[in-house]
Amino acid sequence: MTELIGNPVQLKAVAGPGQPKPSPALEELYRGFEQALLVPLWTEIGDLMPFHPQSKAAPHLWRWNELLPLAERSGQLVPVGRGGERRAIALANPSLGGRPFATPTLWAAIQYLMPGEDAPEHRHTQNAFRFVVEGEGVWTVVGRDPVAMRRGDFLPQAGWNWHAHHNATDQPMAWIDGLDIPFQYGTEAQFFEFGREEIGEAERITPDRSRAERLWGHPGVRPLGVEAAGAGSPLLAYRWEHTDRALTDQLELEAEGFRGVVEPGHAAIRFTNPVTGADVLPTIRAEFHRIRSGAETAPRQETGSSVYQVFDGSGTVTVGTDQWTVTRGDLFVVPSWAPFSVRSEAGSSDSDSGALDLFRFSDAPVFEALRLDRVQVEGGNR
Amino acid sequence: MTELIGNPVQLKAVAGPGQPKPSPALEELYRGFEQALLVPLWTEIGDLMPFHPQSKAAPHLWRWNELLPLAERSGQLVPVGRGGERRAIALANPSLGGRPFATPTLWAAIQYLMPGEDAPEHRHTQNAFRFVVEGEGVWTVVGRDPVAMRRGDFLPQAGWNWHAHHNATDQPMAWIDGLDIPFQYGTEAQFFEFGREEIGEAERITPDRSRAERLWGHPGVRPLGVEAAGAGSPLLAYRWEHTDRALTDQLELEAEGFRGVVEPGHAAIRFTNPVTGADVLPTIRAEFHRIRSGAETAPRQETGSSVYQVFDGSGTVTVGTDQWTVTRGDLFVVPSWAPFSVRSEAGSSDSDSGALDLFRFSDAPVFEALRLDRVQVEGGNR
Amino acid sequence: MTELIGNPVQLKAVAGPGQPKPSPALEELYRGFEQALLVPLWTEIGDLMPFHPQSKAAPHLWRWNELLPLAERSGQLVPVGRGGERRAIALANPSLGGRPFATPTLWAAIQYLMPGEDAPEHRHTQNAFRFVVEGEGVWTVVGRDPVAMRRGDFLPQAGWNWHAHHNATDQPMAWIDGLDIPFQYGTEAQFFEFGREEIGEAERITPDRSRAERLWGHPGVRPLGVEAAGAGSPLLAYRWEHTDRALTDQLELEAEGFRGVVEPGHAAIRFTNPVTGADVLPTIRAEFHRIRSGAETAPRQETGSSVYQVFDGSGTVTVGTDQWTVTRGDLFVVPSWAPFSVRSEAGSSDSDSGALDLFRFSDAPVFEALRLDRVQVEGGNR
Amino acid sequence: MTELIGNPVQLKAVAGPGQPKPSPALEELYRGFEQALLVPLWTEIGDLMPFHPQSKAAPHLWRWNELLPLAERSGQLVPVGRGGERRAIALANPSLGGRPFATPTLWAAIQYLMPGEDAPEHRHTQNAFRFVVEGEGVWTVVGRDPVAMRRGDFLPQAGWNWHAHHNATDQPMAWIDGLDIPFQYGTEAQFFEFGREEIGEAERITPDRSRAERLWGHPGVRPLGVEAAGAGSPLLAYRWEHTDRALTDQLELEAEGFRGVVEPGHAAIRFTNPVTGADVLPTIRAEFHRIRSGAETAPRQETGSSVYQVFDGSGTVTVGTDQWTVTRGDLFVVPSWAPFSVRSEAGSSDSDSGALDLFRFSDAPVFEALRLDRVQVEGGNR
Repeated sequence: MTELIGNPVQLKAVAGPGQPKPSPALEELYRGFEQALLVPLWTEIGDLMPFHPQSKAAPHLWRWNELLPLAERSGQLVPVGRGGERRAIALANPSLGGRPFATPTLWAAIQYLMPGEDAPEHRHTQNAFRFVVEGEGVWTVVGRDPVAMRRGDFLPQAGWNWHAHHNATDQPMAWIDGLDIPFQYGTEAQFFEFGREEIGEAERITPDRSRAERLWGHPGVRPLGVEAAGAGSPLLAYRWEHTDRALTDQLELEAEGFRGVVEPGHAAIRFTNPVTGADVLPTIRAEFHRIRSGAETAPRQETGSSVYQVFDGSGTVTVGTDQWTVTRGDLFVVPSWAPFSVRSEAGSSDSDSGALDLFRFSDAPVFEALRLDRVQVEGGNR
Repeated sequence: MTELIGNPVQLKAVAGPGQPKPSPALEELYRGFEQALLVPLWTEIGDLMPFHPQSKAAPHLWRWNELLPLAERSGQLVPVGRGGERRAIALANPSLGGRPFATPTLWAAIQYLMPGEDAPEHRHTQNAFRFVVEGEGVWTVVGRDPVAMRRGDFLPQAGWNWHAHHNATDQPMAWIDGLDIPFQYGTEAQFFEFGREEIGEAERITPDRSRAERLWGHPGVRPLGVEAAGAGSPLLAYRWEHTDRALTDQLELEAEGFRGVVEPGHAAIRFTNPVTGADVLPTIRAEFHRIRSGAETAPRQETGSSVYQVFDGSGTVTVGTDQWTVTRGDLFVVPSWAPFSVRSEAGSSDSDSGALDLFRFSDAPVFEALRLDRVQVEGGNR
Repeated sequence: MTELIGNPVQLKAVAGPGQPKPSPALEELYRGFEQALLVPLWTEIGDLMPFHPQSKAAPHLWRWNELLPLAERSGQLVPVGRGGERRAIALANPSLGGRPFATPTLWAAIQYLMPGEDAPEHRHTQNAFRFVVEGEGVWTVVGRDPVAMRRGDFLPQAGWNWHAHHNATDQPMAWIDGLDIPFQYGTEAQFFEFGREEIGEAERITPDRSRAERLWGHPGVRPLGVEAAGAGSPLLAYRWEHTDRALTDQLELEAEGFRGVVEPGHAAIRFTNPVTGADVLPTIRAEFHRIRSGAETAPRQETGSSVYQVFDGSGTVTVGTDQWTVTRGDLFVVPSWAPFSVRSEAGSSDSDSGALDLFRFSDAPVFEALRLDRVQVEGGNR
Repeated sequence: MTELIGNPVQLKAVAGPGQPKPSPALEELYRGFEQALLVPLWTEIGDLMPFHPQSKAAPHLWRWNELLPLAERSGQLVPVGRGGERRAIALANPSLGGRPFATPTLWAAIQYLMPGEDAPEHRHTQNAFRFVVEGEGVWTVVGRDPVAMRRGDFLPQAGWNWHAHHNATDQPMAWIDGLDIPFQYGTEAQFFEFGREEIGEAERITPDRSRAERLWGHPGVRPLGVEAAGAGSPLLAYRWEHTDRALTDQLELEAEGFRGVVEPGHAAIRFTNPVTGADVLPTIRAEFHRIRSGAETAPRQETGSSVYQVFDGSGTVTVGTDQWTVTRGDLFVVPSWAPFSVRSEAGSSDSDSGALDLFRFSDAPVFEALRLDRVQVEGGNR
């Protein structure tokens, strides 16, 4: 494993503040470093230890109307089966070297399943979720429990749970997968196992509510006969009707003069594990934001990165020096510490709520667990 | 930030199990992916989602007798001051592209300070520690508290604490720095600030015990008049005499027939935060292992990576398919999931304890906090 | 405070196993103990340190059809106002010396409010809840948020929250109050403050859903714009429709062959704090149990005491050597470690679900927080 | 269990603010309450829900020079053996009805063991500790590990650990036992089991350091080969030399102008569980306070009760309206919310440190775990 072709370390003495004066002796020292596989801090500190996070990732926008046709075309050309495992096509941040990484820690992909198709069972330590921006008809089968997927639903699936997908209809369906693949790739924590080649007959049923929801989906109560196993939420579906109602309630409370919203015109909820009240997944946070038509959020900087998908409505998004007009299905990336704000465009959409609805996921639980979280909001810190 | 030269995504249709059949239509689809900055899962899954961690890092050994002369030479050629900040020379894992990363998450460097020299004050979110394999005479000044550094001492310094170093003697001194620089580089959590150019006169005193030790260094008791601020241990020095005594006690208990050691002939302690009993730093675990002369540890695999330094004695280390004879000061790397064992060589050393003493640090707290830890020991799991 | 009339300590030398032989010298010693306010362990150990909990409280049943008329009569005779504070009538366990303590730690009372009446605002450190076995029309105003109370609803109100009650209808209403008054009386932790004499006009509105529910009552999501203050649940109402649905789901899952129930025919849920997933109150656990008609629970012993109210259906309850037939509204007490089981009587009731529905509250969080919880179930420990 | 002689509930209608007007109808209602075992809140609220804790316990002082002779006399008259279990004589608070309760939650006793005597093995859920104000020669055998007891040592022993005591010398020895007997008596959580009648030969050895100390007694390090079982500290002895050093360090830091003490002239430490950093026992906190000669502490009120023993020096203690001059060995009680302060008397003692040294234990962990803790310090809240 340690055979090397050439020398991986290459150092060059350059003059500059905080640098030793270039000299033949210094060059000789640097050659010694290279031989011994050593790199000095003093030549690298600016890159390694910046004054604030300077993300290697770029802000970037992927348009849904470009993604979806490519996914449909894949439906025709690419089979789903063991080995390839999933017909999933990932966002590749333009500044991350062509890797399928939306951000340095997060994976976001569009997955596509043709009528009647199944994606085979497997499990992995990577934490995952699905989010449905449109369509329905697929049941994700997690631990043999078939879970319906419909527009607006958020479906977490913590690491090391067996899962397959089953399209029970005569229509194709697309959705978004979010995972911590880049994070686990970087820290090298991954395990993977194949499951059964075919799901059982009992899993081909298409119930409206999963067993998980029947056990864990009632507000404020938990079952006493079962324990939640593993690290993530035992609730396998967070339905749009509840998310929508919660956001509506917040804006109505604001209109009535009560507290509830994050800031004027900006309602937001976080998906939580009912067993702990904490994030649904150990490494991924998922939220929904609704910005009232005409409202604008205060520029906000956070350590850690996020991926957003526009669920409904339209508006203008500003990330650092980039600015885009976005509409339903569009996906964009907010790198670590990049100032982010969004303005909901009055009258420009026929969304259900008349507002801009954004689904967001991020790596915030990693930062909070390791005490690396920091937030700065224009006009006040939090 | 988003200007790109060329296209970062490059895809090639190849035949293979789980892959779609190459065809002009597939090639056209892949060109569409490249244009849209998309990468399919099915071509990447083997690399991204392996059956078990397959580290990008290589097992590797750096010999102390090669490192130290290069550090000494740096002492002559490279000044210490603002900008370069520290005369630290980092281990660059041969498989990590020449970056100063010992493992994908950990930084390990030899730092060197000449007689009378000071390293200027700064602070950063990166968690750090110092470990002294030989020598003395430097006081690390953390939050204006001068902390003596001596052979065998472990000195943690959690993120965002102001710190400087001060060599109060007429002898140079070398030690090892460990940090989570690569982890924070990957997750992009870093902040950095310059402090004072010069430490104050009151910090040039050279007390035997730091104020931190006088407050927090008594076994089983904590002070009531002060709180521990921040995320890491308020105890700034873990002295060799206590570590040595704890290891000696374990081997004596074993000899008396009582439990205490990890396995036959293998004593071990972990450095802990007295406020919580948990690891000294949010992202870094530090341990000391003593293997009785002639004893051998069971091969062990863990998610996450470690760096070891031989503190005393000598022996044979096996990491994956690599094997080295090691002696005082040598540093080596154990990548994620690489089987690791060590044998203490009878009679080959004149160590104080007659055993092989190993200092170890790892990224285990990251894995445990995020529920990604897994351990497998030959002859039994734990 | 220390003036004493007579001597509070009185000792008598008695012969017996483990006791010193009675003698004049021993009597003299005991007189010395009395003078010095000392009591030996050896005469008291059997009472103080029994082999298992032997409760001072008795199992006991209070019939709803006896309680309610007394509450109604109080409605005619006893005004509600500052000083008396509440028209609440507490269960007094027959073995606890006439004190209004249902168990050594728990208070249970029937509270009664006449048409148009208000109970004045106050706050206290005692944790409290209301549970409604029948009727509606009162809004409990917690932190100025009016919360409707209806049959089957559970309404927690953690310590130190301002609260008043407001009967907005032309009908009287009764409900059950549960508090940790005896526990705080024993440990001496109580604080109490009067609030406003009258609630404001804005609090006399009668919304169907409280602001608390609109913010915190959506399954699996939490608001981002508000924090939960204090030690208990921010959700102020747990509605019967959700409890009922959760219990129904469990029994249907059982019928379909899936796990869900606690034991055959026995569904159960616990009310939880959505912020933490833990119990709704720091000292009180609240649960709902549904036993299918004809089913019987396994005898169970737990450290800590419980109060049950029959919500619907009828059945036979066994507590230690006591056995009662119970029906809607009846309240009974299960002392610490007393074996408890219940059988649902087939066909004997016209309950909504055809089953026996039991509301339960207990002091279990105290025992769990202090590591004193122990459970033994006949036919298996848990 | 439910046979009653007479009626435990007795109510009397009295005129007063917040009370219903006495009348024959009210009397009849109250008779109905008595029959039904009910007690109204409105007659009891002042006692049950006071504006602040008003302890049933009295401040009280027990003089060591009265206690010790009675213990010595017990040594002559009272055997130690199975049934009586321990020659322990408990403080009975004069306001707690002659029960052996120092406070409503805490037990404090002097235990006495004659030369060569053993106290038989047992275990119980009550959490316990021993504290030695003078003498030595007894080894407490906890889980078969003999632990030496010497002046100044604090020896915790969490619930459900087997333990016996062994006097290995030709001198009697006395010490203080602290337990949560009253708390567990009130909440009814107790279990008790007899162990072996005789301890083994291997436990009659008299090592200077216990195995527990050899594993867990090193500052800032924990062993990796053993886990801590149960709810309390695995460290079975907290030695005086460490406590003394910690207190000395704090006062010296104060003299040097650095922070460390609680308030001027007042050093204090808390004994902690090295595994968690929390209190040594789930229900009992133990601390040591040193007040410099001439210094005085600010009056302080806390929910929960404490027992103090003077370890060294002398001074004046104020508890509520009581005031005592205290000296070595004296024990006193501070009830819940009673203002407490102490003044160290300059020159009045020949203590080792020239200061007043106080050992303290309290029920604070109960209050903190259940969110009932409150502290008020004169001249500032904390």
